[in-house]
Amino acid sequence: MLDKKNAYVVAVAGATGAAGREMVEILEERNFPVAELVLLASERSEGERLEFKGKNRTVKRLSRESFKGVDIAFFFVDAARSLEFAPAGVQSGAVVIDNSSAFCMDPKVPLVVPEVNPHAIAGHSGIIANPDCSTIGMAVALKPIHDAARIKRIVVTTFQSVSGTGKKGMDELAQQTVALLNFKDVAINVYPQQIAFNCLPHIGDFLDNGYTMEEMNMVNETKKIMEDDSIRVAVTTVRVPVFRCHSESVNIETDKKMSSNDVRAILSTAPSVIVYDDPKKNIYPLAIDVAGKDEVYVGRIREDESIANGINLWIVSDNLRKGSALNAVQIAEHLVR
Amino acid sequence: MLDKKNAYVVAVAGATGAAGREMVEILEERNFPVAELVLLASERSEGERLEFKGKNRTVKRLSRESFKGVDIAFFFVDAARSLEFAPAGVQSGAVVIDNSSAFCMDPKVPLVVPEVNPHAIAGHSGIIANPDCSTIGMAVALKPIHDAARIKRIVVTTFQSVSGTGKKGMDELAQQTVALLNFKDVAINVYPQQIAFNCLPHIGDFLDNGYTMEEMNMVNETKKIMEDDSIRVAVTTVRVPVFRCHSESVNIETDKKMSSNDVRAILSTAPSVIVYDDPKKNIYPLAIDVAGKDEVYVGRIREDESIANGINLWIVSDNLRKGSALNAVQIAEHLVR
Repeated sequence: MLDKKNAYVVAVAGATGAAGREMVEILEERNFPVAELVLLASERSEGERLEFKGKNRTVKRLSRESFKGVDIAFFFVDAARSLEFAPAGVQSGAVVIDNSSAFCMDPKVPLVVPEVNPHAIAGHSGIIANPDCSTIGMAVALKPIHDAARIKRIVVTTFQSVSGTGKKGMDELAQQTVALLNFKDVAINVYPQQIAFNCLPHIGDFLDNGYTMEEMNMVNETKKIMEDDSIRVAVTTVRVPVFRCHSESVNIETDKKMSSNDVRAILSTAPSVIVYDDPKKNIYPLAIDVAGKDEVYVGRIREDESIANGINLWIVSDNLRKGSALNAVQIAEHLVR
Repeated sequence: MLDKKNAYVVAVAGATGAAGREMVEILEERNFPVAELVLLASERSEGERLEFKGKNRTVKRLSRESFKGVDIAFFFVDAARSLEFAPAGVQSGAVVIDNSSAFCMDPKVPLVVPEVNPHAIAGHSGIIANPDCSTIGMAVALKPIHDAARIKRIVVTTFQSVSGTGKKGMDELAQQTVALLNFKDVAINVYPQQIAFNCLPHIGDFLDNGYTMEEMNMVNETKKIMEDDSIRVAVTTVRVPVFRCHSESVNIETDKKMSSNDVRAILSTAPSVIVYDDPKKNIYPLAIDVAGKDEVYVGRIREDESIANGINLWIVSDNLRKGSALNAVQIAEHLVR
């Protein structure tokens, strides 16, 4: 793993983005043993300052030379930049925890959700991949059910917030909303279509099979993290005009019959899961309530009477925390344990 | 059916609501043979004026005496008012086409989507029910597939716009959005939770089985309209911060294997369906584009590789037109044909 130290030199690449900023906050919140924090970003953000433990730190330009002396490098950049710079981090001796899709399905790279497959961390060769934000929330909630009753099939439709696209996605939703409420023309820059007051069944590029990259990522990453290729997964991913948190409508078919109370009992003791499920009292997870929370919230748990062993669930998690920066820090906590 | 006439006395109960106003426009657009138009609403809206064919008409108060001489009465009021006033319409000799949930599952009342089960109209005893707006869009798109390949199971998650709750729902979304963008507190009146920048897995009251009324309506109405109780349906209904049109992520399992091209071919000749499906050119149905359209738009048609005979679809229809007023007028057009 990593040499045992009292504290580690930590780099954050993409520090000025939405997930990068969250990362810096979470490192402080969780009191991660940071000896020195190296903030890295593209040329555009070079020289910006971010606060960490009461001190302003200057953001430096990400380069192949950025990683000298770095023990752990968190990457919150796009896949192309991860492919370009992560190997330099590894060559400098850092362990890279990468949040892009670049290495997720690389068989030599562990893809880790610490609540689900922490043992995979030990097999790394310098890079550990952080899964897609939608996959993480679902895997945390479904793994305990899979262990108890074996999940045969998942049909999931997502409601993904614009912060999944970073700060620019949040700005676009805000700007388009203001424009529409003032009867002005909407500028479309970040998404392929208007996102304000609209739902886009389009996240990531389309592949030849008609699915998007995001949809196939959820299919493939779920199998890899759960370490079970027999799980069948059908996915539709949708961007919704919500700032933060991804919600998921999930239908599962299990091998063993589970009542909704069985599922509630299993999830109520599962790590990082909060069962929030008393619908007659209007208690079910909502994106606006889960924002800023570390746990994955599960509600609307109910038996699906359309098949013998079916359950419906509504899963909400903070895509910037558990879906991204928090999961990455939790991987690092395992590394330094 | 109805006595043959050149033109009919038509009443619209709930004329000042979102669907009622749409109704008046559609009667004019389609040149429905209206001899006289009687606009009815609650005491609150009595005296308002609505334009029909270039003339302002005054809205009268809905009462049991409103229907003397009326041939066709369209009801766009809540279920309690439909139960109270529809029988008076029938007693006065009118055929009532009711848009509430009051009579949908009454075995003596036909529940009709003219593209799906027009023959059911003939069996009415004074009342014909207009299905739930979410059910209509799905039934129009799925019936031709059911006829060709027999649908065994449907797993659907909806993205329903606030106009499904009427004008007050649209006002609430607009007001909450403005409040949030001005850093003010949000007033919650119409929905149980904030709808602006949020998704609510809660439409209609919760039942003892954990499902909402809206979800069970979609299960039961789909079977009744498709006239096939063997179809198994799992539903999650979600309110989204969109003003108009309902989108649906639909996964179906068929008895006979269908390729995505088979489905496109069948739907491209189906009545009231537009296949809008060329995702690599960013062509797929969107709520903002389908608003004001009569047809049901279907895209993202792709084989579901998680089962032998599975298809995923993304269905969007205008809940105020095909999902409500237009479907009601089309029923009336069959009545007077």
